[in-house]
Amino acid sequence: MKPTRRVTIAGGSITPFIGKFHPDFIWKKHPDFGQRENPTLEQLLHRVALGACSDVDIDPAIIDRGYVTNFVGELFSNQGHLGAMTAGAHEGFLHTPFTRLEGACASGGLGIAAAIDAIQAGADLVLVVGAEVQTTRNAKVGADYLARAAHYAKERSIDEFTFPAMFARRTRAYCEKHDVTPAQLAPIVVKAYANANRNPNAHMHAVTMSQEQAANASDANPCFLTNEELNPWLRISDCSQVSDGACGVILASDEGLDKLGSGANRAVQLTSCSVACGPLGAVPDYTRMDVTSAAASRCYGESGWDATDIQIAEVHDCFSITEALICEALGFCDEGEGMQIAADGVTSLEGSLPVNSGGGLMAFGHPVGATGVKQVFEIFRQMNRLCGDYQVANSPTRGLCANMGGDDRTSVVTLMEKS
Amino acid sequence: MKPTRRVTIAGGSITPFIGKFHPDFIWKKHPDFGQRENPTLEQLLHRVALGACSDVDIDPAIIDRGYVTNFVGELFSNQGHLGAMTAGAHEGFLHTPFTRLEGACASGGLGIAAAIDAIQAGADLVLVVGAEVQTTRNAKVGADYLARAAHYAKERSIDEFTFPAMFARRTRAYCEKHDVTPAQLAPIVVKAYANANRNPNAHMHAVTMSQEQAANASDANPCFLTNEELNPWLRISDCSQVSDGACGVILASDEGLDKLGSGANRAVQLTSCSVACGPLGAVPDYTRMDVTSAAASRCYGESGWDATDIQIAEVHDCFSITEALICEALGFCDEGEGMQIAADGVTSLEGSLPVNSGGGLMAFGHPVGATGVKQVFEIFRQMNRLCGDYQVANSPTRGLCANMGGDDRTSVVTLMEKS
Repeated sequence: MKPTRRVTIAGGSITPFIGKFHPDFIWKKHPDFGQRENPTLEQLLHRVALGACSDVDIDPAIIDRGYVTNFVGELFSNQGHLGAMTAGAHEGFLHTPFTRLEGACASGGLGIAAAIDAIQAGADLVLVVGAEVQTTRNAKVGADYLARAAHYAKERSIDEFTFPAMFARRTRAYCEKHDVTPAQLAPIVVKAYANANRNPNAHMHAVTMSQEQAANASDANPCFLTNEELNPWLRISDCSQVSDGACGVILASDEGLDKLGSGANRAVQLTSCSVACGPLGAVPDYTRMDVTSAAASRCYGESGWDATDIQIAEVHDCFSITEALICEALGFCDEGEGMQIAADGVTSLEGSLPVNSGGGLMAFGHPVGATGVKQVFEIFRQMNRLCGDYQVANSPTRGLCANMGGDDRTSVVTLMEKS
Repeated sequence: MKPTRRVTIAGGSITPFIGKFHPDFIWKKHPDFGQRENPTLEQLLHRVALGACSDVDIDPAIIDRGYVTNFVGELFSNQGHLGAMTAGAHEGFLHTPFTRLEGACASGGLGIAAAIDAIQAGADLVLVVGAEVQTTRNAKVGADYLARAAHYAKERSIDEFTFPAMFARRTRAYCEKHDVTPAQLAPIVVKAYANANRNPNAHMHAVTMSQEQAANASDANPCFLTNEELNPWLRISDCSQVSDGACGVILASDEGLDKLGSGANRAVQLTSCSVACGPLGAVPDYTRMDVTSAAASRCYGESGWDATDIQIAEVHDCFSITEALICEALGFCDEGEGMQIAADGVTSLEGSLPVNSGGGLMAFGHPVGATGVKQVFEIFRQMNRLCGDYQVANSPTRGLCANMGGDDRTSVVTLMEKS
C-alpha cells in the first residue's frame, strides 16, 4: 500500500557477508581456526541493531518498534524468538516491541513492509534488522533446511539440492522458450562478481569470475545436480552464496527524522511497497515471475511510476536466471531480453540502470533473512553516494528493490526516491 | 498503540485442539491407526483460513492481508514460508500479501498486533491464522525444539525439559517469597480441566482432574524433571498440553464490516493492543512478569481502563504458576494472591472475572502459534454468547487477552469491548 504518512529510510548498518572463500570466514583450514569463531546469529543481530542506531546518532531507547527478519534460525542456530533476542542488544530496548517475520528469502522485505505499516499506525522510528547464519552445517544439510522455503512434502525430492534444481527447471524452460543457452547467463554472473570485487563487504570480494569461467562448466565450476534432466542447466557459478551476515536500517516518519542526532539529510523516501504471494508448490509458468510482477504492478499503479523511471535496482538474483526473470517481471526489458540487458551493459555500474551494484545475492552474498533489508540499504547508500569503489555512475534518484521468497511465492517490491 | 481507525474482530474459525488423550488423536494404539492421519500443518492453516472467511460470509478474494502465526513449523513439519503456504488455501488468495510472524508462544498475539497495524495503514479486511503441529516427534525431541523460545545456548541445559524447568524455577521462587506451596496451585489446574470438560474443542475434553489429583504428585501425575533442585516444584498436571490445532480470525475496519455477507452485528472492538519484549535469558525477578506488566500498563494507559474494568480474560497459562503470575501482572489481584482468586472462584465460569473459560493452555490445549489467536476468538465468542456449555455467567462486555512468549520475554496484551 502507498503510505499516507511519509516514510523514509534514515540510515543503517551492515556487517560483511562471509562464508566459504571469504578471507575472514573461519573454517578448519583457516589459520585462525580454533582461536576465534564466526559471529553467532545473536552477535550479528546485536551488531546491526546498535550500528543502525549509531548511524543516525540516536539512543536505542527512542526506537518505537523493532522487526527482526530471519528464515531458519531455529535450524542453523537452534534459536527462535529472535525479537526478544534482539531486544537484548541494549538496555534501552527493554519493553520495546520486537517482532520476527519470516517469508523465506523475502523475510527482509516483509520487515520493511511491516515497518511502513507501523509508521502508518503512529510509530516514528522503527528498526528493521535482518540476519542469517547458515555456515554451521554442511552444504547438504543446509540445502535440506532451505528446502523449507518450498512445499517440502511435494517438492523436496526434486534433488538433494532442492532450490538449485527448481531454478535449473526455470533455466531450462526459459532457454527452450526463448531459444537461448545457459551460457548466455554468464554476463549476469560476471557483472555480479565484478561488482563484488569492488565491495569490501561482499562475500566474493576476493574471487574473480571471467566470462569464460562463467559460461562453461568445468571441474572448478561443475554442473552439480543429481537430477539428470536438470543437471546440464545449472553450474555452481549460477548460484547465490551461502553466507552469514546481517543488515539493519532505521525507518522514520517526518517526526522521527526530527529526532535524529545526525544524518536526517540523507533520508530516502519509501514511496511504495507491495507484498504479493502465490501458493507454494504451484508455479503457473516457469518462464515468468508472476508474483513479483503482481507486486511491481501495484507499486507502479500507486506511485504513478513505470519501469522507465527506475534508475537503479536491487533484484533477487538467487540464481543467474532469476535476475533475468525479475528484470522482465519488473518491466526493465521485454520477455526473453533479461540476459541481453546484462550483456549490453545496461545493468552495470556504468549503465543507465545499474542492477545489484554491490554484487547481488550471487557475489555480495545471501544471508537469507538479511537480504531484503540489505537491498533497501544499498539503494539508500547509492543515492547518498556512500558506495566508494562501486558507486554507480548515473546519480540515481529513483530506485527499486525486488525481494523474492521461494520459487517466486512471496515477493516484496519497494520503490525509493531521494529528493 | 491505540488504533486511530476502529478495528473489530468480525468472526473466525477454530479446529479442535488435539493430542495425547484426545479421542480423535491418531497414535499407534488408536483403532484408526494406519487408516487415517492427524491433520497436517497445511491442512490446519487452510481449514481455518477458509473457515474464518466462511464465518463472515465473504469471498476470500476480498481479504486485503493475511498474517500467519506459527512457532516452529520448520522443525515439527519441515515447513517454513507459511504465508505462501496459506495463500494456497483458495484461488482468491492469489497475490494477496501473507506474512508469517513468530514470537515463540506469543506468535498469535503478534499476528493480531500486525493486523491492527495493517488496518491503520488502510486495509479493511485482514485474516490472521495461527497453527501449530507438535505431535510429529516424541516429547523429548519436542522439548528440545520448544527450547528455541529460550536463549538456547545459555538456557537449554537447565533440564531435558527446558521450559517446564524454567517455570518450576518460577514456582519455587514464588512459593518461597509468598510462603505458599505448589499444592495451592491446584485450583487453577482443576478450573482449567473443569472448563475443558465443557468445551468440545478442548484437548482435555474427556479427561477429568480433581483437587486431590492436581494437588499431589503421584504415579499418574509425577514430578518429572531430572534437575533435582527443581523437580519437586512441578507435576505433569501443572503443564500445558502439546497440541495440534489452529484458529483463524477476521479483523475489520468499519468499512470492512460493511463488506461482510453476515455477522457484522457480532463485531467486538479491539480497543488497545500492546507488545513488549525483554531480553532472552535475563529475567530480572522470577516472581514477577515484568514484560506482561509493561504491555498491560500501556493498554490501560491508552484506553483509560484499569484492571477493575475487565470482566473476562484469556491469560497465557503455559504452566499453572503462569496463570497466577499473569493475573498479578495484569492487576487482577495483589502479588501473592494469584492462586487465591482461583481458589475463591473469582476466575471460574460463574465468577466475576472468568479466566481461561475454555480450559486455557493447560486443558483447552496449546498449539503454540494458534494460542494468541484463539484467545481473542474466545473472548469474541464469549461476548457473543457462542460458548454453549462453557458460556460464562456474567455477560462480559470488556475483556483482555494476555499472550506471552518464552519466559515472559515477549508479551502481547489486547483489550476488547462489545458495545
